[in-house]
Amino acid sequence: MSDLRKGPFHLTNTLTRKKEEFIPLRPPHVGLYVCGPTVYSDVHLGNVRTFTSFDVLYRWLMHIGYTVRYVRNITDVGHLLGDAADGEDRISKGARAEQLEPMEVVQKYTNGFHAVMRLFNNLDPSIEPTATGHLLEQVEMVQRILKSGFAYESNGSVYFDVPKYAEKHGYGGLSGRKIDELLANTRGTEGQEEKRNALDFAIWKNAGPEHLMKWNSPWGVGFPGWHLECSVMSTKYLGSTFDIHGGGMDLKFPHHECEIAQSVAADGQVPVRYWMHTNMLTVNGRKMSKSEGNGFTPEELLSGDHKLLEKGYSPMTVRFFMLQCHYASTLDFSNAAMQAAEKGLARLMAAMELLPGLKASETSDADIEALGSRCYAAMNDDLNTPVMIAELFEGVRIINSVNDGKMSLDAARISKLKDLFDTMVFDVLGLRKEKESDGNDSVLDGLVQEFISMRAEAKARKDFAASDAVRDKLLKLGIVLKDTKDGTTWERG
Amino acid sequence: MSDLRKGPFHLTNTLTRKKEEFIPLRPPHVGLYVCGPTVYSDVHLGNVRTFTSFDVLYRWLMHIGYTVRYVRNITDVGHLLGDAADGEDRISKGARAEQLEPMEVVQKYTNGFHAVMRLFNNLDPSIEPTATGHLLEQVEMVQRILKSGFAYESNGSVYFDVPKYAEKHGYGGLSGRKIDELLANTRGTEGQEEKRNALDFAIWKNAGPEHLMKWNSPWGVGFPGWHLECSVMSTKYLGSTFDIHGGGMDLKFPHHECEIAQSVAADGQVPVRYWMHTNMLTVNGRKMSKSEGNGFTPEELLSGDHKLLEKGYSPMTVRFFMLQCHYASTLDFSNAAMQAAEKGLARLMAAMELLPGLKASETSDADIEALGSRCYAAMNDDLNTPVMIAELFEGVRIINSVNDGKMSLDAARISKLKDLFDTMVFDVLGLRKEKESDGNDSVLDGLVQEFISMRAEAKARKDFAASDAVRDKLLKLGIVLKDTKDGTTWERG
Repeated sequence: MSDLRKGPFHLTNTLTRKKEEFIPLRPPHVGLYVCGPTVYSDVHLGNVRTFTSFDVLYRWLMHIGYTVRYVRNITDVGHLLGDAADGEDRISKGARAEQLEPMEVVQKYTNGFHAVMRLFNNLDPSIEPTATGHLLEQVEMVQRILKSGFAYESNGSVYFDVPKYAEKHGYGGLSGRKIDELLANTRGTEGQEEKRNALDFAIWKNAGPEHLMKWNSPWGVGFPGWHLECSVMSTKYLGSTFDIHGGGMDLKFPHHECEIAQSVAADGQVPVRYWMHTNMLTVNGRKMSKSEGNGFTPEELLSGDHKLLEKGYSPMTVRFFMLQCHYASTLDFSNAAMQAAEKGLARLMAAMELLPGLKASETSDADIEALGSRCYAAMNDDLNTPVMIAELFEGVRIINSVNDGKMSLDAARISKLKDLFDTMVFDVLGLRKEKESDGNDSVLDGLVQEFISMRAEAKARKDFAASDAVRDKLLKLGIVLKDTKDGTTWERG
Repeated sequence: MSDLRKGPFHLTNTLTRKKEEFIPLRPPHVGLYVCGPTVYSDVHLGNVRTFTSFDVLYRWLMHIGYTVRYVRNITDVGHLLGDAADGEDRISKGARAEQLEPMEVVQKYTNGFHAVMRLFNNLDPSIEPTATGHLLEQVEMVQRILKSGFAYESNGSVYFDVPKYAEKHGYGGLSGRKIDELLANTRGTEGQEEKRNALDFAIWKNAGPEHLMKWNSPWGVGFPGWHLECSVMSTKYLGSTFDIHGGGMDLKFPHHECEIAQSVAADGQVPVRYWMHTNMLTVNGRKMSKSEGNGFTPEELLSGDHKLLEKGYSPMTVRFFMLQCHYASTLDFSNAAMQAAEKGLARLMAAMELLPGLKASETSDADIEALGSRCYAAMNDDLNTPVMIAELFEGVRIINSVNDGKMSLDAARISKLKDLFDTMVFDVLGLRKEKESDGNDSVLDGLVQEFISMRAEAKARKDFAASDAVRDKLLKLGIVLKDTKDGTTWERG
């Protein structure tokens, strides 16, 4: 199953707004770049969704036979706060608040980010480059843009001249914005006197003495503009034009729009062939936001320690829940939906545990081949994980029916069904067993049930000394028996 | 216990070859720099020992009340192979062999290194800077050394002029080498025509077209010399003079000697106040080396999958084994020594499990205060972990005697002993429980033992139907009984 025979893979290209057949530039190689986290605070749940979506893309491309170089950067400098904060660097801000060296902040949150990625079973990218690791290259890209005439130096900063660029190459194609409307809707350059036009963005920013992260450059001491690093790192590792660039849809404008402009201005090359954007999270139908108090962290979702959460959910429950929704749709968190996902995942896993023990028949009354084809078709249709999962539940129905003796499968089809489930559940969806079924708990329960029977028998023959002896023996081992109207249950004391 | 009252901390300063009282420059802050791994291959066991030793130093400094900034770098470029290979870059070499982009190699082995560090319970450093993340700073340091006159440009490379530097500042003080002898013992510059003197080392190296990792510089396309990155990164994050610099003793010369020379030449500052070096590993008394085939990896040591290993050892057994030897002594691996460590660790952990349940007496006949003082004294005496562990075993003897009713401790002393063990075993030595004593196994065993007794009773009264019934019930739950000359044992079927 690990070749490209299962039909072409289509994905929605945000640039053309169309579902297109994916044809890589240099098969079997695929270059994939995803905008990674800014490591000045804990990773939020929206990041987890984005990176989980691209993790499934990465897994799928590898599964259908491509050799993928997956680059996901770490933004450890230069993430501007936007015009309001006028170029203040978020990392430096966090550092001052915590009285730490900026790179200590970076290290802390990078480690935290990696821990969360491991928790949700996301694979490591092939390369995880940092903005600070590519300063020379960023300075050189600024020089190339200056040389091409689409940037200007102003007071030790360098700005990208958006109107000038737009006139020659157009601007706004990815996000569907029109330069005239953008210009009309943008306030003046008040408080930003370095800029010629309000739309211009810094590709190099001068640093005042209050800045902790800064480097020497041909324009004085400063730091790179945020949009620059992704242009530099994606093309350095994937080539001046590469296959897929992804990120959350909030990055479409201005970040990705600016990336395109930078590459075209510096190197005359359109950098990306397929753009892919993941959609946002909501909670009970409302946008997740700090100010609304409905923005729980990944840790809170797992522990249940948030006022909107009735309980905690396991990492695989969260992952399964996310993948039951298409990456391009809004994903709405609610306790009801999470609990439904928890039950669904338990049903799926329970059926998978039955699979190896299913009794083979001579005949079969389920078409496993067709089921497999529908799973592949769903994934090849723009990574349609919800449809693929629905097909897996059709498989669950078959497994349970065979187990109940209401349907039959021959040995070859049982084996094929097992392969399909292992592939789709573990390799492609990236789920993993959370409770290793080493049987410890069930053996323990089996032994205790034997004692409960013995005690019941002793009671039935009115040998209360014997029945009390059983209870006391278990109590000494820390097992407490409870007599209820439904019979005797037990728990750890 | 987390203050500095327990007496001054002494450590052996490799620079003075004396045990000195440690007095940081800016208490309570301590700056600690340790040379990290070169990520072009899997981390070897010697690295694990080195980083574990410095992990204990880090833990101890924090425990006695310091705020430590612990910087451990990742060498991801510019690790020269030495004169023989004439400047070939190890990372690039690895990359070509594996047909990967160099940064893909870097990522793979960085991830692997982090996984091994987690396995052995080493804490993350405060900052883990990379050589590629500090190229601008390295170029600037080369410029400062050129300006001071202790380096020269030659054919696009820049070399540090060792004889010239030695004449003014002396050279070899750390490693105890004399410049005249070094000059006499070094071959000529044949094949290295760029150099003026055989002892000179590259601080910037020109790169041929075959080099995959290279950057533009004022001297053309090239890459930084290996010694340079540590000078740059240690002083960037810890100041131009900082407290402690550590590494394996194989780095003393030339690497650390060159670091001193670079800092003095560039900035006129002696960079390090205390140098600390860990000793080497041997196997059955012989130096561990690939060519001798006696160099097993951390993974092989854990799995036992190497011809010299009788079995695998757990990560905490390895850690405990390492810490039973002083960091400045040679550590010799043998199956006998590893198995002794395994038993010792088990005894230590078993005693710790007894501690919370010890019965308090009115009186005490053990001096816990003195025991604690001796533990602190051992650690403050150049991190003497073997002596501290020996003191803990004196504590184990006390615990076991109290448990057997042969000694007595009052409640306050039991509590003090528990604090001491928790602190020294978990916080300072960095050991962790490998089997969570959640009691599952012991409850299971307790239940099975009840059945074994029932079966023995049935056999004794010749009720073989009843004894067989017990055996069959257990078999159904996957538990197999075995009658041996020492009685009945059980195992999972």
